[in-house]
Amino acid sequence: MQDKHMLMIPGPTPVPESVLLAMAKHPIGHRSGDFSNIIGELTENLKWLHQTQNDVLMLTVSGTGAMEAGIINFLSPGDRVLVGNNGKFGERWAKLGQAFGLQVEEITAEWGKPLNPEDFKAKLTADTAKTIKAVIITHSETSTGVLNDLATINKYVKDHGEALIIVDAVTSLGAVNVPIDEWGLDVVGSGSQKGYMIPPGLGFVSVSAKAWKAYETATLPKFYLDLKAYKKATDKNSSPFTPPVNLMYGLQASLKMMKAEGLESIFARHLRLTQATRAAVKALGLPLFAPDDAASPAITAVMPTGVDAEAIRSTMKKQFDIALAGGQDHLKGKIFRIGHLGFVSERDMLTAIAALEATLQTLGYEGANPGAGMAAAAKVLSV
Amino acid sequence: MQDKHMLMIPGPTPVPESVLLAMAKHPIGHRSGDFSNIIGELTENLKWLHQTQNDVLMLTVSGTGAMEAGIINFLSPGDRVLVGNNGKFGERWAKLGQAFGLQVEEITAEWGKPLNPEDFKAKLTADTAKTIKAVIITHSETSTGVLNDLATINKYVKDHGEALIIVDAVTSLGAVNVPIDEWGLDVVGSGSQKGYMIPPGLGFVSVSAKAWKAYETATLPKFYLDLKAYKKATDKNSSPFTPPVNLMYGLQASLKMMKAEGLESIFARHLRLTQATRAAVKALGLPLFAPDDAASPAITAVMPTGVDAEAIRSTMKKQFDIALAGGQDHLKGKIFRIGHLGFVSERDMLTAIAALEATLQTLGYEGANPGAGMAAAAKVLSV
Repeated sequence: MQDKHMLMIPGPTPVPESVLLAMAKHPIGHRSGDFSNIIGELTENLKWLHQTQNDVLMLTVSGTGAMEAGIINFLSPGDRVLVGNNGKFGERWAKLGQAFGLQVEEITAEWGKPLNPEDFKAKLTADTAKTIKAVIITHSETSTGVLNDLATINKYVKDHGEALIIVDAVTSLGAVNVPIDEWGLDVVGSGSQKGYMIPPGLGFVSVSAKAWKAYETATLPKFYLDLKAYKKATDKNSSPFTPPVNLMYGLQASLKMMKAEGLESIFARHLRLTQATRAAVKALGLPLFAPDDAASPAITAVMPTGVDAEAIRSTMKKQFDIALAGGQDHLKGKIFRIGHLGFVSERDMLTAIAALEATLQTLGYEGANPGAGMAAAAKVLSV
Repeated sequence: MQDKHMLMIPGPTPVPESVLLAMAKHPIGHRSGDFSNIIGELTENLKWLHQTQNDVLMLTVSGTGAMEAGIINFLSPGDRVLVGNNGKFGERWAKLGQAFGLQVEEITAEWGKPLNPEDFKAKLTADTAKTIKAVIITHSETSTGVLNDLATINKYVKDHGEALIIVDAVTSLGAVNVPIDEWGLDVVGSGSQKGYMIPPGLGFVSVSAKAWKAYETATLPKFYLDLKAYKKATDKNSSPFTPPVNLMYGLQASLKMMKAEGLESIFARHLRLTQATRAAVKALGLPLFAPDDAASPAITAVMPTGVDAEAIRSTMKKQFDIALAGGQDHLKGKIFRIGHLGFVSERDMLTAIAALEATLQTLGYEGANPGAGMAAAAKVLSV
């Protein structure tokens, strides 16, 4: 049925009607006074969302572009960096660092397991010469549904004293608490098609005073991604290059919605969705890929036994027009991922679980009693 | 009056209703089969628009990001490049080249005058050692309304034989003939908020086989802007990073409109708009900033005498809600610029000229007979 598609993937996430309609307005000149007011409003609301007084800059890029800006502006060729790698995105930041000639030391964990903060502690405490310039962490690893223990790793970075902490918060910002000022996170990158509830095309980078100090001596070449140009412009409610005007109309609408809901409520909603999903999946006898104590609030990965992951995705799509994400790289065909990030309600979550149960019946799965998933989810949501 | 704003600036340009509504659709997954079909359709239609069999790649960037990708992918630190600089954008590519450690030699002309192709010929013919790796040209210099003689400069680059020709076609592509394959243009960068008739946020880069050969030995660091990653993905109707799904819905609609109008008609329309505007401005006794034989088809810059440029812009905005562009840098307050690029009809052009005449009357300008501008424009459009 046309227009009945339902997105339960970790991005693009569903977009509210008011955002879609806001984006359908005619663009205005990005150098006009009216647009300057919009940039001012967005910047103020972004600082609220980021829980920070640091600069929060908007770039016309996807999440990877935001992270690249967050890395190359503060480092020089040969700089030693620790990169946490326990999934597709951690791996990507290691590759990116190598592409820019950084001395990348990966701290790995098996895909599906969280990074061990003690591995970082060991490297950081051994570095008495303070040669480690930055630690790059993927907070919510989208490829596996693992939430890394950013708070603890950050504590060890703070004990080190010199290294910057650079965070990929692409699927954590706006879903779980990322208190930038309280924790002292130096650089935090994110993208619009996630917790922000707008389509892809806008990237965000928050930058601390300590990171700006590092900028002064950083020598990696940059122009389009030169964050100082964005800061100078943002300080005057402007942009260095043409910004994506219509996406920013959408962002105006979505940030208003987020402020109306409130940060605590947003985080609580994502937690309930996560817990309901995990309870249902467990009750259905399907193994969760990430452990309970490292569950991403954005996405739940499932590694089914006794039933094929791709058959589940395919039936969900064909029979119920619900898009789930598959596995990436070596997990292709082995896991499926349920997104519950951004504009997702408890009703949506029940719908997805109901469809998953029906799909399992269609596929002849006999690992659980019919209705067990719904009952478990409803129990979580009834509290 | 709300919603009566009229854009006559060189970007963002007006966006058709069908494009705005297309962008207001719910996003779908960018890794889905349905979206893969969209990428395939867009790529085919972009090749039509670019008049090329070369790769045409889509990036989530503004025009500057597209040009940066078009430059850094094919060059190495210390490479000698000639950069044409006769305005804000030529100047920008020189700065960009310097930021990346290229040996930039600027070939300049006064702002408002076209680059002299013979200056390029002199440098290129003297370079018997073939040390010049690329020539970077802004085709339509948006800051001044000058169209540089790309065809002749390109001929000299071809005579050189080794250097790549890298073109900023941001305000020329889709407005005037840029026959990439016929001329053998190696790299051509452009942006969505111009001739493409969609909002800002998408950049385009076309890449020739010769440029790909240069890519193999180019050592400037890159990751988000690594065009080989875009090529590999595009060859499979995919994208390396999350693309701006909703802008691409808009692009589907606008490319269909462009194909229905036809390239020849699009170029003819822009030429008529340009000629009508210039005839009207002349008849009003206002000096044109660019000469007739180097007039951009996208934008007409006017350097008024006997009346203040900013007063004209301000009255046009306040009384008629028409946005004109001002001058940049040392031209601030000295020129105003009328955009006639993209989704602009002859009716729009008459409207803008009528409002300009009325504005001049409001400001007490006595340099021309009332109605002279309209008469001149109508004469051009009656042919």
